[in-house]
Amino acid sequence: MLTLKELQHTIQQQITTQILEAAQQPRELYEPVEYILSIGGKRIRPALLLMGCNMFSDNVEPAIAPALGIEIFHNFTLLHDDIMDKSAMRRNQPTVHTKWDENTAILSGDAMSILAYQYMAQCPAGHLSQVLRIFSRTAMQVCEGQQYDMNFETTGNVSEAAYLKMIELKTSVLLAGSLKIGAVIGNAPEIDADSLYDFGRNIGLAFQLQDDYLDVFGDSRVFGKPIGNDIVANKKTFLLIKALELAEGNIQTELQRWLQDNPASHEEKIAAVTAIYRQLGVEKLSREKMLHYHAQAMQALNKVNVPNDKKIELQQFAGQLINRVH
Amino acid sequence: MLTLKELQHTIQQQITTQILEAAQQPRELYEPVEYILSIGGKRIRPALLLMGCNMFSDNVEPAIAPALGIEIFHNFTLLHDDIMDKSAMRRNQPTVHTKWDENTAILSGDAMSILAYQYMAQCPAGHLSQVLRIFSRTAMQVCEGQQYDMNFETTGNVSEAAYLKMIELKTSVLLAGSLKIGAVIGNAPEIDADSLYDFGRNIGLAFQLQDDYLDVFGDSRVFGKPIGNDIVANKKTFLLIKALELAEGNIQTELQRWLQDNPASHEEKIAAVTAIYRQLGVEKLSREKMLHYHAQAMQALNKVNVPNDKKIELQQFAGQLINRVH
Repeated sequence: MLTLKELQHTIQQQITTQILEAAQQPRELYEPVEYILSIGGKRIRPALLLMGCNMFSDNVEPAIAPALGIEIFHNFTLLHDDIMDKSAMRRNQPTVHTKWDENTAILSGDAMSILAYQYMAQCPAGHLSQVLRIFSRTAMQVCEGQQYDMNFETTGNVSEAAYLKMIELKTSVLLAGSLKIGAVIGNAPEIDADSLYDFGRNIGLAFQLQDDYLDVFGDSRVFGKPIGNDIVANKKTFLLIKALELAEGNIQTELQRWLQDNPASHEEKIAAVTAIYRQLGVEKLSREKMLHYHAQAMQALNKVNVPNDKKIELQQFAGQLINRVH
Repeated sequence: MLTLKELQHTIQQQITTQILEAAQQPRELYEPVEYILSIGGKRIRPALLLMGCNMFSDNVEPAIAPALGIEIFHNFTLLHDDIMDKSAMRRNQPTVHTKWDENTAILSGDAMSILAYQYMAQCPAGHLSQVLRIFSRTAMQVCEGQQYDMNFETTGNVSEAAYLKMIELKTSVLLAGSLKIGAVIGNAPEIDADSLYDFGRNIGLAFQLQDDYLDVFGDSRVFGKPIGNDIVANKKTFLLIKALELAEGNIQTELQRWLQDNPASHEEKIAAVTAIYRQLGVEKLSREKMLHYHAQAMQALNKVNVPNDKKIELQQFAGQLINRVH
């Protein structure tokens, strides 16, 4: 059994030899593809796909191409999301539409979505139909999640349930789908592949809640990005949604004022809204919710019918996710 | 054997019942998908896919989902091309990014590329791997063709060979790939599927050359769009590329002046450049080139090992393409 770290390393090597060094023509189309795949990322999703396979089979070789497919797909969504969100930076580097232009980012992204399918379709023939079904369904859900996320920008009242649905689609299903595709390729019984999917779905929810939490209560030096971005942008995170639900009287008035004003000082707004979050106890609610999904994930992992030593890596991975400070 | 017209009709019905009436959620994502699929188009590519199948099999049923996949993919490329080209209208209707906005057009397009694969993957399991290989390669080539087309906007000298390569990628391979996928699903021998591909590739080249030709020498009342658009935009069509290659002395100077100036009157520029085209004989060269590709297409079709009555529809289709006036 390989460790998650070893699998991440395998993916990194494969991306370099199979994609970056291929340098296909026309360069104007493929250079941005190579660029976004070269500027990092932790290769979590493809490593999870390989791990899903490795839990049921000693041979992860047949899962490598689909794993690359997942990573290419993920980076394709980042590339197009960055255009839609008008983000200038990603992983401390200029985004594709900033370094080149929007048209380049659109077309290179389109090429990446096709490239993702080219790799995914290299999975063993016996599993091809099922793997594609899982992959396409997941990919479509990611688009739906991005759409809900954009809708929320102009929706006054977002419910907790709608928010959880959105992050499930936008973030969780790709982790879940990666694990399940790997398991299918590793010839896992259907019920175990489904349990792994469930693990991934819950851990993805926990991950996103922790991300929202760290944006407010994290330490900017270790979180790697400035604290309070979501507050400045009035982003409808779990924290804000719960705060809007719970706030009454003066606190409600104050919170609404901060949301409507465009204050001169971001620091002042961040401090004030953070204080409201603490007053209302949404900090605690968010941690509880995250721990709930972590527990659900562990329960799903327990159900998988493999010896416990094959689960240690995922247990540790889940533990690190909720204890991380960045 | 069904006629091309009957097959186009079949596709139209399937789009209505399977996609338009499904009305999936979130509406913000799927409405633009339904919109672009509802505003028309001749359904040529999916009908060719079904025809490719029908030439070798009486049962076109297994080819219907892949045919829808081709049509969805084609419309996805139109949707994203319209953003890149900043086109406000398509098929006499506002384009998606005009009717909604750019973000909507990007994301709905992305969803369409996935939807295309979902339909394509519904082909019979025994052909799945090969069909996906043809489809993905074709799809990637369409992206490459679009990139070359965009490159040409800022390239001084485009050679005839580079132009023909570009239209092959951007336009021809999708017609060719449609026919080949259909043939494969109809259990055609490999050599016949390849001949059909060759027919499609050549007829696609003839089609695009005719399109360039009609933009200048067509009748605006029957062509359905104003004449001379390409001239006004300095678009590097076959006509302009040949003219730049052949012009000398005064004619060269005059042509260069029209390309560099931004004249007050479009009509004047169109008339002048059209006159230069006639003087240099590029009108004739273009017709000859088109007839050459038409002949190549007919030769490829002749090679297909099916009774001649199964080829009549494609022969007529090819004849109509080169004799069309719009």
